[in-house]
Amino acid sequence: MRLKELLALELRPDLRVANGLSRTNFVVIVLILFGALLAILETEPVISERWGSLFVVFEGVLFLLFLAEYIGRVYTANYPDLHGNVRGRIRYIFSFWALLDLLVLVSFVLMLGGSTLFLVRVFRLLRIVRIARLGRFSRAIDLILEAVSARKFEMALTFGIALGLMVLGASVLYALEAENQPEVFGSIPRALWWSVATLTTVGYGDVVPVTALGKIVAGITAMLGVGLVAMPAGILASAFSEAIQKRRQAEK
Amino acid sequence: MRLKELLALELRPDLRVANGLSRTNFVVIVLILFGALLAILETEPVISERWGSLFVVFEGVLFLLFLAEYIGRVYTANYPDLHGNVRGRIRYIFSFWALLDLLVLVSFVLMLGGSTLFLVRVFRLLRIVRIARLGRFSRAIDLILEAVSARKFEMALTFGIALGLMVLGASVLYALEAENQPEVFGSIPRALWWSVATLTTVGYGDVVPVTALGKIVAGITAMLGVGLVAMPAGILASAFSEAIQKRRQAEK
Amino acid sequence: MRLKELLALELRPDLRVANGLSRTNFVVIVLILFGALLAILETEPVISERWGSLFVVFEGVLFLLFLAEYIGRVYTANYPDLHGNVRGRIRYIFSFWALLDLLVLVSFVLMLGGSTLFLVRVFRLLRIVRIARLGRFSRAIDLILEAVSARKFEMALTFGIALGLMVLGASVLYALEAENQPEVFGSIPRALWWSVATLTTVGYGDVVPVTALGKIVAGITAMLGVGLVAMPAGILASAFSEAIQKRRQAEK
Amino acid sequence: MRLKELLALELRPDLRVANGLSRTNFVVIVLILFGALLAILETEPVISERWGSLFVVFEGVLFLLFLAEYIGRVYTANYPDLHGNVRGRIRYIFSFWALLDLLVLVSFVLMLGGSTLFLVRVFRLLRIVRIARLGRFSRAIDLILEAVSARKFEMALTFGIALGLMVLGASVLYALEAENQPEVFGSIPRALWWSVATLTTVGYGDVVPVTALGKIVAGITAMLGVGLVAMPAGILASAFSEAIQKRRQAEK
Repeated sequence: MRLKELLALELRPDLRVANGLSRTNFVVIVLILFGALLAILETEPVISERWGSLFVVFEGVLFLLFLAEYIGRVYTANYPDLHGNVRGRIRYIFSFWALLDLLVLVSFVLMLGGSTLFLVRVFRLLRIVRIARLGRFSRAIDLILEAVSARKFEMALTFGIALGLMVLGASVLYALEAENQPEVFGSIPRALWWSVATLTTVGYGDVVPVTALGKIVAGITAMLGVGLVAMPAGILASAFSEAIQKRRQAEK
Repeated sequence: MRLKELLALELRPDLRVANGLSRTNFVVIVLILFGALLAILETEPVISERWGSLFVVFEGVLFLLFLAEYIGRVYTANYPDLHGNVRGRIRYIFSFWALLDLLVLVSFVLMLGGSTLFLVRVFRLLRIVRIARLGRFSRAIDLILEAVSARKFEMALTFGIALGLMVLGASVLYALEAENQPEVFGSIPRALWWSVATLTTVGYGDVVPVTALGKIVAGITAMLGVGLVAMPAGILASAFSEAIQKRRQAEK
Repeated sequence: MRLKELLALELRPDLRVANGLSRTNFVVIVLILFGALLAILETEPVISERWGSLFVVFEGVLFLLFLAEYIGRVYTANYPDLHGNVRGRIRYIFSFWALLDLLVLVSFVLMLGGSTLFLVRVFRLLRIVRIARLGRFSRAIDLILEAVSARKFEMALTFGIALGLMVLGASVLYALEAENQPEVFGSIPRALWWSVATLTTVGYGDVVPVTALGKIVAGITAMLGVGLVAMPAGILASAFSEAIQKRRQAEK
Repeated sequence: MRLKELLALELRPDLRVANGLSRTNFVVIVLILFGALLAILETEPVISERWGSLFVVFEGVLFLLFLAEYIGRVYTANYPDLHGNVRGRIRYIFSFWALLDLLVLVSFVLMLGGSTLFLVRVFRLLRIVRIARLGRFSRAIDLILEAVSARKFEMALTFGIALGLMVLGASVLYALEAENQPEVFGSIPRALWWSVATLTTVGYGDVVPVTALGKIVAGITAMLGVGLVAMPAGILASAFSEAIQKRRQAEK
């Protein structure tokens, strides 16, 4: 029974008294990041062709380690109850984080059976999902959700304005440029690609107005719109910053 | 007379005691957004060729629903007066929002008669105007106008500086690059297209200086100007944020 | 002598008791802006070829009006002294704003004699300088200088860091990409064009790294650098905003 | 012994009572900046071919001046001790700044022996390192490190989110665009180049999605992501600004 207690204290953040992560969970995080890196690099043909067999080995080791972690978590799920209570474990198995862990494990097995090119790409994406497992140890996503909900009115309002502006810009440029560039300004949805690229200031330059009037309207749109479109982002950033400070003061 | 009261309470936001929108107005908003989406998608040939007849049906249904809404609004315009007072209704018909509603209804009818390509495009744009009808239910535009008027001095000043900087940048690059690229730097108005794209940091890249001196001046302009040109946008954003907070505190 | 007093009160902002501009100075500002617009439009061949004679007429009228203004300003320069004191006027003629006015008048005359293409372009630029005359009526440039001097330490520091980062980025990409793209990365000054375009987020796209290592370093540079390079602009914007508020409170 | 005291007071900032830099150190800074400028310009073939011999002369003079400075610094390293104590000097020679000075001096000598093209480029980069010597006189880097450490939690968090978003965007576009553009979206590492360029709003435009679905996802990614990716930069800027103000108040 001593072992179960030790394991539970190592694996479950909710039972931890000291600050920070336990050594085991730290290792788990490193393994998750390492696994994500593997999944990213493996998609590159230049790399996977050369070290393909190495990837298989690493993936296998990761699978075994994550399997052990999964079994450990299920085993300690009913910890304060030292007897063989199965109900707590079953409840754990169907919790969000446990299902995510299971999905990641299953995706390893599926990889082997991926026969068609399309399936392989989908399974690969599934493995990027591993990074989401970090959410168990981090409160970053909580903080973002908190920040969004604290200012949801402002964000919805400014986002609506930004969207309206994009549609407006796209509509006017569609009217002015459709004849000259039907391929890229031939409809409002097509013109939206230009509109989004311009008003976020990304400005790829693959689509630009060519008529004098189109350039004038585009220039005015850019000058006026750039500020309005950046507003939801600015509100989110300041709300996020506030949420962090509130959290920090609460921890003191 | 009971019906008129019910209808008036449903349709007119100014008579509403409870917070938020009435059910009818909520449906109207959804229909407006749906109609705008239709108008946007219909411009895309790939979509309109395939589901063209579906669009006609949807447009017809929307026309009937908006017509009913219009009649309802005119009918309840003189509400607290339960008798057949026509003057209140006529006054309503010539109000801004009622005229906008009428314009949208008329644009539906005009669509059918749009024979030339140019007219069709203009009528389509008219139908995007539908989104403006949302303004009746939203205070977003009020808030922006409030924000602009609260800081109109700063905004005019920084906008003037930004404009001056753009003209200055365009003038200098016109002087330096006109000989090498007469098509895009051959006059100050032409060079302004480069200037706007650069100082808003959109940077399409369709027009770039090619001479060494032009590149040096352009680089310095970009480094110094990017901050100044972003100032009106920054001022607007902070004023908007203040206006929202003021409104919120007033509502408490 | 009555006339001189009236003229002085109309022309000289320093003698004005009421708020805002006098009617005459307002007209002068409109004329300056109109003149600048003329100078900008005239550089465009499409416009100047068609309405060339109109421009000559407008320029002539503007010349006469500005000449009258200049004479009026010189005449009222020694105003509180109603007798023929010449010294005050001479001192005025050599003041900054009067010299600028003279330069603009001279540039009109020079225009007529501009024979070579190069001289014409230089004279045209001189005429854009007209806009600078607005500085006499506006305190915008004072406010910017005030803002810069209030935070000159921060601005110099962040500007230095931004510059250092640009040189660093350019140096590393020069080392990595010089062999593959000698035309655009063949020296550090050349690589600086890429560096400035990237770190100001303008991103023309005329110069991009092509080697894998170059892309990795460029990506990291962009992620880390974009924030640091935007700092002087951010500091200037907030200092400018403060300067405006201080000025406003002082006016109350 | 008088000379040693004078030299020490001139060269060592830690012994200085008055504010600002000593005259000698000011000259040293100017020489460092001049040397960096030389190193930058020398990489440009157009310049080095024409004034190559001039560069050799300047480099030689700089070498002698920096050598004298180095000897002076070693000589005064054990200053308060006026006798021939060698230990203080040896300790100084192995300090960070002294080693950097030595490296710069050695790089001058190595330049002469640089035979292969690759070595020449590496030695040139070494000479850009000279600018780092400015760090001895400036607290800019201290301030940045201070700012980063004051907000290291927020910065790590937002940087992690930004990185996660980039990987996510790259993964989805890899899935959608790999078939159409295998060269630039054929793997997640390749797609990351697009992702970084887009989310930092640099937007070179050398890589853009071409499929309709890819454009829709890219547009949404840009709209949502631009704000999140700008967050670490915004936090750094505000922390830096705070660190400067704190330093300033401490100096009062």
